[in-house]
Amino acid sequence: MGVRRLSDKSRVWTAALVVIGDEILSGRTQDKNVEQVALWLNQHGIRLSEVRIVPDDIERIAETVNELRAAHDYLFTTGGIGPTHDDITVDAMAHAFGVPVIVHPQARQILENYYRDRPGGLTEARLRMARVPEGAELIENPSSGAPGVRMGNVYIMAGVPGIAAAMLEALTGKLEGGRPVVSVTVGARAPESDVADLLRETEAANPGVAIGSYPFFRDGRYGANFVIRSEDGELAQRTGEALSRRLREEGYEPVEGGL
Amino acid sequence: MGVRRLSDKSRVWTAALVVIGDEILSGRTQDKNVEQVALWLNQHGIRLSEVRIVPDDIERIAETVNELRAAHDYLFTTGGIGPTHDDITVDAMAHAFGVPVIVHPQARQILENYYRDRPGGLTEARLRMARVPEGAELIENPSSGAPGVRMGNVYIMAGVPGIAAAMLEALTGKLEGGRPVVSVTVGARAPESDVADLLRETEAANPGVAIGSYPFFRDGRYGANFVIRSEDGELAQRTGEALSRRLREEGYEPVEGGL
Repeated sequence: MGVRRLSDKSRVWTAALVVIGDEILSGRTQDKNVEQVALWLNQHGIRLSEVRIVPDDIERIAETVNELRAAHDYLFTTGGIGPTHDDITVDAMAHAFGVPVIVHPQARQILENYYRDRPGGLTEARLRMARVPEGAELIENPSSGAPGVRMGNVYIMAGVPGIAAAMLEALTGKLEGGRPVVSVTVGARAPESDVADLLRETEAANPGVAIGSYPFFRDGRYGANFVIRSEDGELAQRTGEALSRRLREEGYEPVEGGL
Repeated sequence: MGVRRLSDKSRVWTAALVVIGDEILSGRTQDKNVEQVALWLNQHGIRLSEVRIVPDDIERIAETVNELRAAHDYLFTTGGIGPTHDDITVDAMAHAFGVPVIVHPQARQILENYYRDRPGGLTEARLRMARVPEGAELIENPSSGAPGVRMGNVYIMAGVPGIAAAMLEALTGKLEGGRPVVSVTVGARAPESDVADLLRETEAANPGVAIGSYPFFRDGRYGANFVIRSEDGELAQRTGEALSRRLREEGYEPVEGGL
């Protein structure tokens, strides 16, 4: 992955994520990767700026990858790198980059070791998991052997959330980024429409923060969490305190950390 | 919504979904709408063909909407139609369609009735929820008053999953579609790599089906669910039976309905 360079903290680093899988688009499977990739990226000072969920279709994947890898500092993908016929992400990626698919010698070695003492050994199906677009590097997979793949600024990971998590873990500290966005949450047992003006004014009075309002209905009562986001942690903190004060003045009991 | 026309069952109807929200892209909130919109669409014979998750940014939302409403029969959006300053979906939609935002008389009436006996009444913030792009119709919201919005082939719904569900319910039976995709699931306690050839052969022998393989690791054992999808329900059923037979012949115990 190379050595981490000195970060340019002054600019916003962005990433996109492509979730590949008919099973998500059919509603059969609930995606779990958007959330964990988003949180991991923010720790690295990289903003998840767009997600696309696309079907198991080589052309569609390749088009999407080419559009997004040009538009962002990093592109992540999840899904479609297993041993079965519906795992076509590597082929789509090779198509996107205009290179052939090869068997990566180190990936083959990893799989040979992994399957040496397992029933069946390294079958042809399992060897599919050593295929990469020519020019790619591997992403370590401490969880289940078969590695992920890095091709330029594209990071190709497994769809199974536990395996994707292990690959993110292996990448931790290896990507250049800027300043993480800091979030401060204040909750209140109030319909958000009652405090809309107060929120707008608090955001306007504190340039450099964005305030999101996330309502809920729970235990028969309306409430909302107000999330203050900024790259300036102290500013986020001060704004949270100012919002709490305003809420208290209006007769609402703020809950720091959210409800 | 107009009367349901006689469906053209012979073609594939597609939809896209735009999930609008910084809270999803930051990892703060787990999306629940992709799954329920996907399942609802399939009941109507409409295929969810693409999902995009975009930030609370008028230009980004408008661009995405214009691209996807042209590419699909239907476009759904979730999020950003509440009463607070960060709810900008209606403004983005008006921008996308090149029309002004107006207060919809019927929406105002709904909100007046809804808030008549509630503390504060119909405040200016709450009246924001009656704003629509000029030319729009309403989507009924039996759950919390504030309606959704239909503009051309774009269906604008709330982000709170329970409210989005109520809006989908109100739309049930009102959209034209084709034949729903039927899924038949067969599970087995086998690493998917052991049965990769068998899956590929079964798919190849049954044109008109797609077989997806979804592995898991549970209770210390590998397993996978094989999902056979087709617009031809009988074909999906027959293929499921053929796959079960093949699995049994190879010494695996198939589990109909999946694991």
